[in-house]
Amino acid sequence: MALFSSLTPVFITIICILIGVILKKTNGEKEKHETKSKPLSHPWVDEDLKDGTGHHLEEEELDKEWQGLEENVPHVPFSAEHYTEAEMIKRSKMFYELLNKRRSVRFLSDEPIPREVIDNVIRTAGTSPSGAHTEPWTFVVVQDPYLKHKIREIVEEEEEINYKKRMGDRWVNDLKRLRTNWIKEYLDTAPYLILIFKQNVGLYTVTSTPLNCGPQLRVLLQRPANEKLLLLLPVGYPKKDATVPALTRKPLEDIMVVM
Amino acid sequence: MALFSSLTPVFITIICILIGVILKKTNGEKEKHETKSKPLSHPWVDEDLKDGTGHHLEEEELDKEWQGLEENVPHVPFSAEHYTEAEMIKRSKMFYELLNKRRSVRFLSDEPIPREVIDNVIRTAGTSPSGAHTEPWTFVVVQDPYLKHKIREIVEEEEEINYKKRMGDRWVNDLKRLRTNWIKEYLDTAPYLILIFKQNVGLYTVTSTPLNCGPQLRVLLQRPANEKLLLLLPVGYPKKDATVPALTRKPLEDIMVVM
Repeated sequence: MALFSSLTPVFITIICILIGVILKKTNGEKEKHETKSKPLSHPWVDEDLKDGTGHHLEEEELDKEWQGLEENVPHVPFSAEHYTEAEMIKRSKMFYELLNKRRSVRFLSDEPIPREVIDNVIRTAGTSPSGAHTEPWTFVVVQDPYLKHKIREIVEEEEEINYKKRMGDRWVNDLKRLRTNWIKEYLDTAPYLILIFKQNVGLYTVTSTPLNCGPQLRVLLQRPANEKLLLLLPVGYPKKDATVPALTRKPLEDIMVVM
Repeated sequence: MALFSSLTPVFITIICILIGVILKKTNGEKEKHETKSKPLSHPWVDEDLKDGTGHHLEEEELDKEWQGLEENVPHVPFSAEHYTEAEMIKRSKMFYELLNKRRSVRFLSDEPIPREVIDNVIRTAGTSPSGAHTEPWTFVVVQDPYLKHKIREIVEEEEEINYKKRMGDRWVNDLKRLRTNWIKEYLDTAPYLILIFKQNVGLYTVTSTPLNCGPQLRVLLQRPANEKLLLLLPVGYPKKDATVPALTRKPLEDIMVVM
């Protein structure tokens, strides 16, 4: 597999998240306009971003940024490479085999990773589709050990509460079989943590993970109020003695219906 | 690029969406448990799935399905291929170049696509990570022309209302520059439509796109009440005269912050 590397899961995961942004953008529109009879006067300031942690941008600043989009975009002919059917079948099979190697690994070594690889990961994530091509994302790459440890403290404190109080018994039990808990050593050992913030450039709802840590992490990393934590990705090589749960995947016939 | 084909955007997009599922799952937990002081008695029945379109599964059925997860999963050693730094840099650059070719194409031809390619696309999507490995998704592949046209009718009717009433002026203006509107000819011409439904196997919030069409499409396709439309993907080759907006992407320094 020409493209496979141990970092492939990171590429894929980052790109994946970003589609969520677009979905939520669409949905946020719906919720706001259906529950309120009149349009909001400043709809681009999302209620959910008012997390009480200060650092708010003035609305005018947000406004200016939003208007930065070009008004008219010329349309240009599009031509894609057109493969034979046999080639397409072969390529799609290879792509499946590549991505089927992806695993969530909780045992990460501290072996350094070239920064150029991280740069390419984020360049790649930046190719994700976004609603009206607003590209509403910021990737914060944390390599500073002190900051990484502060992040671990924030996450572990909230996660302990999540596991003990906020999550249902079923969910906790489900996680138990994968042996995950609120201790996240990899937040110290991974050479990089990538935190994805989504910017509030329009009307949409927001989500953050890890559960409940968003506001504190945003303040720690001094991100502006129009950004909200979307995801935290520890990036590193697997440890020599890394293990993963021996999971299988549902067969195609269990997940696909053809009509 | 060994793996690039004109269907790459579809692969990527499908996989992307699925991460959203996991994010929302986590977040749904938070919302429910923080707004209500006592745990719900039947937390796996999501309020949002009660869309008034009938076909509800009995709670016991859902319960049974949920308990289908194995209790104990052995952990096995994990070893990934470990490339030299030079190889990693090269591979990550190739991966960027591959994904940078992805474009959203609204002009799709009716040229048939081999079913085996669609199967591989969905097999690939099925490798996405999911919370506690619940794999809570169903991919509905629609090739029947009558069904495709019914889908188009449902989507266009709601989208016209979305554009005219539900979406803010800014959002509509933003879309105008990309020349998108509520007319979706590609829902008829694409040889396949893939509709992704997410299953409600635990506590999480749900989102659907296209805006407001979810319940009707679920009934049309006779999906059970514990599934909710997540995404509708038309799949086809670009038309010979296809165009795309001449967009550029933000440079790395505009989207990345290193700490």
